[in-house]
Amino acid sequence: MARVIEDTVGAFVPGPRIELAGAPSGPLAGLDFAVKDLFDVEAAPTTYGNPDWARTHPVAVASAPIVVALLQAGASLRGKTKTVELAYGLTGENVWHGTPVNPAAPDRFPGGSSCGSAAAVGAGLVDFALGSDTGGSVRIPASYCGLFGIRPTWGAVNLTGACGLGPSFDTAGWFARDAATLRRVGDVLLPAAPAASLGPLIKVQEAWVNALPTVAAALSVALSATERVAGPVLSLNLVPETLDATYENFRHIQAQEAWATLGAWIEATQPQFGPGVGERFALAKVTDPARLAEARRFREVFRARVTGLLGSGAVLAYPTSPVPAPRLETPPEGQQAVRERTLGVTAIAGLAGLCEVTIPAARVDGLPVGLSLVAAPGRDRALLAFAENVAAALGIG
Amino acid sequence: MARVIEDTVGAFVPGPRIELAGAPSGPLAGLDFAVKDLFDVEAAPTTYGNPDWARTHPVAVASAPIVVALLQAGASLRGKTKTVELAYGLTGENVWHGTPVNPAAPDRFPGGSSCGSAAAVGAGLVDFALGSDTGGSVRIPASYCGLFGIRPTWGAVNLTGACGLGPSFDTAGWFARDAATLRRVGDVLLPAAPAASLGPLIKVQEAWVNALPTVAAALSVALSATERVAGPVLSLNLVPETLDATYENFRHIQAQEAWATLGAWIEATQPQFGPGVGERFALAKVTDPARLAEARRFREVFRARVTGLLGSGAVLAYPTSPVPAPRLETPPEGQQAVRERTLGVTAIAGLAGLCEVTIPAARVDGLPVGLSLVAAPGRDRALLAFAENVAAALGIG
Repeated sequence: MARVIEDTVGAFVPGPRIELAGAPSGPLAGLDFAVKDLFDVEAAPTTYGNPDWARTHPVAVASAPIVVALLQAGASLRGKTKTVELAYGLTGENVWHGTPVNPAAPDRFPGGSSCGSAAAVGAGLVDFALGSDTGGSVRIPASYCGLFGIRPTWGAVNLTGACGLGPSFDTAGWFARDAATLRRVGDVLLPAAPAASLGPLIKVQEAWVNALPTVAAALSVALSATERVAGPVLSLNLVPETLDATYENFRHIQAQEAWATLGAWIEATQPQFGPGVGERFALAKVTDPARLAEARRFREVFRARVTGLLGSGAVLAYPTSPVPAPRLETPPEGQQAVRERTLGVTAIAGLAGLCEVTIPAARVDGLPVGLSLVAAPGRDRALLAFAENVAAALGIG
Repeated sequence: MARVIEDTVGAFVPGPRIELAGAPSGPLAGLDFAVKDLFDVEAAPTTYGNPDWARTHPVAVASAPIVVALLQAGASLRGKTKTVELAYGLTGENVWHGTPVNPAAPDRFPGGSSCGSAAAVGAGLVDFALGSDTGGSVRIPASYCGLFGIRPTWGAVNLTGACGLGPSFDTAGWFARDAATLRRVGDVLLPAAPAASLGPLIKVQEAWVNALPTVAAALSVALSATERVAGPVLSLNLVPETLDATYENFRHIQAQEAWATLGAWIEATQPQFGPGVGERFALAKVTDPARLAEARRFREVFRARVTGLLGSGAVLAYPTSPVPAPRLETPPEGQQAVRERTLGVTAIAGLAGLCEVTIPAARVDGLPVGLSLVAAPGRDRALLAFAENVAAALGIG
């Protein structure tokens, strides 16, 4: 606790810094971490990125169990980090608390909704940070900021004491600057699982075509460099319905869940929102039941097909985000286009309940882009070990 | 799913039965289970035992991850079970849904707040059932109904998708009719842990003195019978401050947390409550901050002392409840006296964050009474195995 952290990138929520010393010994002893401000920390407010949320909710009476687990494992909490309001956005913008700076590209968005956690790790303020991922909120900022990140299998990590957005998609994930730290945090937070060997790698064609050609090219080169440790890379078409279908079906289910989870509070409080957030909730309020039912049927069929494919240990590989971090001055319609193109890919793991690790495998015009490795539900520990080997092969260990 | 379950004891919430088939194979294949109606099951209402709660909350958009984990492990959900309103009570009474019958003593309370889950398991409707335990809500109905039950280490089992009462005490627990089933469910729901050997058994004197002499005598005989497998039983005074102190300090923290968690909804909704529940929330609203701070300090000191004592593997042993199930006609002041005497004991594990298994080790005047085995935080798996050995030694395996 001796080191004083200067928040050079605006990663932490405004106000007094929330710090808690970790246990003197344990598997994470000596590491510092930060927590997205939608997880409870005892006696601290949980703002969920929105002043009206903070105003209408009492300070937390207990820390989220995963925060306690990290403290007991020896890691020290160094602050609570900014989130997109109610976690409902992918750029990382927060007009109330200030958008964190992307340490890898200061004139571009950090990605969200776990923007402050990504910025804090990217700037070296802490060793790792907790985020949450419903539609890409760990994976996208990890890709934009050049970090390792994980969206675990849905249900694998305890979300008690965390604000919800889309319960059937919500997961707790985390960021680190190296694959070993990412794995060590998983050793503490993930459930036990039988050992599993993973492979082969399979390129999901639709996601590579969906990415900018420069992104696809840079990541293809990186992927080829992994063949030494991961074997030959295969490829297939996973989504004959197209990524428009994964996006649209994901969007309808998530919107309905977001309104079911937060609509009553929004109606009662009439909160102020920054750009885009209120509009998304207004759309979420009016989900068509027939379209929702169709989306749920799509999810069932998609999940069965994909988990069947991955049952033997195959690992999907594709660009985490189709684009590097967009410029801060990107207009709303440009942001929306990126959002739709991004969610079509991130929805693969979301709809099928897969675990996904993103690796900062390449740069395009100096901007980081992530390579995603995606495995069957429950293979999180094996996937983190696999990602460690891949990162080593890429020389970014 | 072929078997039709007739609800002979009023265990399930009124309305359509919520059933979901488990996976065809898995470690719990072939077992039926029920879920306390404060855990979400996709597309079903979560009543939390109160009609106004049900009316003001949408149907669940996703199942709680632990329900999904049980289904994936092969167990089939056969229904949602009654709970005391907002889980705030120990008798098991619910005037809206009807108090479930205690299958072991039909003229007595089933115990609560997980009353329906205990009744369902006790009557043989299902093989096991999920409950929750904040102040004793699994342990007490298990003792009253003659069942095995576990309150796991706080934070060890995922409470996502469960309604909260006192976040720093809330745990998900479960009931079974035999120790092996109790342990098998733990194999699915509990985090990995290094193997640990437990012992010796230590009687907590205050809790034995606090119990009715007939209860203490019957359970002492049972405890002696375990020496063959568990070694000699020691004894000590654990709470020199007396059980009034554990009760009072627990009560103040829990009350403040209950109001912080549910007060805003109560103020906004002005719900109707059955006897006692509204009164407890009215008291919860006015916790004295200075007394609360003192209670939190007590908890810190108590937790450090007890977890230190148990660090080497020692297991505390005492009567789970000081009394057998009270008669249904017990007047309110008699119920309150039982409540206070009970919470002084159940607060030991609550305040110190211990794991506790209760075993139906004896009967008094034909009524079941439970023996609690209590271990250090994180020793849940070892404790379940230990309890299996103890149960076998008692011939109730």
